[in-house]
Amino acid sequence: MSTTEAPTLVISPSQFLAHWQAHRRLTRRAIVAFPDDQLFTFSVSGMRTFGALANEMLGMAVSTVNGVITNKWDSYVPSAATTKDEVLTQWDESTRQLDILFPQIPAARFQETMTAFGQWTMPGYDLLLYIVDNEIHHRGQGYVYLRALGIEPPPFYDRS
Amino acid sequence: MSTTEAPTLVISPSQFLAHWQAHRRLTRRAIVAFPDDQLFTFSVSGMRTFGALANEMLGMAVSTVNGVITNKWDSYVPSAATTKDEVLTQWDESTRQLDILFPQIPAARFQETMTAFGQWTMPGYDLLLYIVDNEIHHRGQGYVYLRALGIEPPPFYDRS
Repeated sequence: MSTTEAPTLVISPSQFLAHWQAHRRLTRRAIVAFPDDQLFTFSVSGMRTFGALANEMLGMAVSTVNGVITNKWDSYVPSAATTKDEVLTQWDESTRQLDILFPQIPAARFQETMTAFGQWTMPGYDLLLYIVDNEIHHRGQGYVYLRALGIEPPPFYDRS
Repeated sequence: MSTTEAPTLVISPSQFLAHWQAHRRLTRRAIVAFPDDQLFTFSVSGMRTFGALANEMLGMAVSTVNGVITNKWDSYVPSAATTKDEVLTQWDESTRQLDILFPQIPAARFQETMTAFGQWTMPGYDLLLYIVDNEIHHRGQGYVYLRALGIEPPPFYDRS
């Protein structure tokens, strides 16, 4: 690529945010699909409950975007929610905060290497993808928990 | 953004490919972790086996990139592999083909809307993300299968 040529636009910041929020809508539906009394009690083969996994997602999302914006990183702290209602309330608050914060990421930060939470060193885009990928990974596990509970998970392709 | 300003570089095509191939290395390790006689027989709660899910991934990866390059779409056909050796041989061949094909995607195609396999209409970047996300989703399910078999899955954060 010559220096006068614009870089290829694969995905814009607003498209990245929209993609993530679409995944977050699907994850929210997976949380809702769990019976209230199983979200923090049921798992397969001693793995973490889907409530614990949702608390991890909640602990990562806004704090990572804040860190990417400011390059100030606190310790990673998962949410301490203990009920489905608490998880969903925090989820919706995170949704609102991500919509406000994500557009504030300075353009250069996506390609800058940073160390998140004192331990994960990678470019900004990779760090943000890591958070989204981690959510998809754990939601996939939650789908198996739902099947094991005899519950049909929400369709993977529907992110509306 | 003014019209003279270059778009924000979130992720370049080569970074996207590297990100995907890193996930594909991890998925390969998950396939390897299954005992030969469980890959196409074991699952949880009547779900598809991880062998069947790997065959779906194999059927999507190269054919999607080919479609994004050419905008010619055949029907979606999963791999018909029936053994771990066959899956891994096809996996490694796909790895080589993706390295050759992905850089041939014309720059404008990432933002063009297209209909893949006659049924999925979305921009090129979203279609490619869908394939990666689908792999992460099903691999997460495979992690639960491995735990249910008493096998420690490969670490999620290690994509080397």
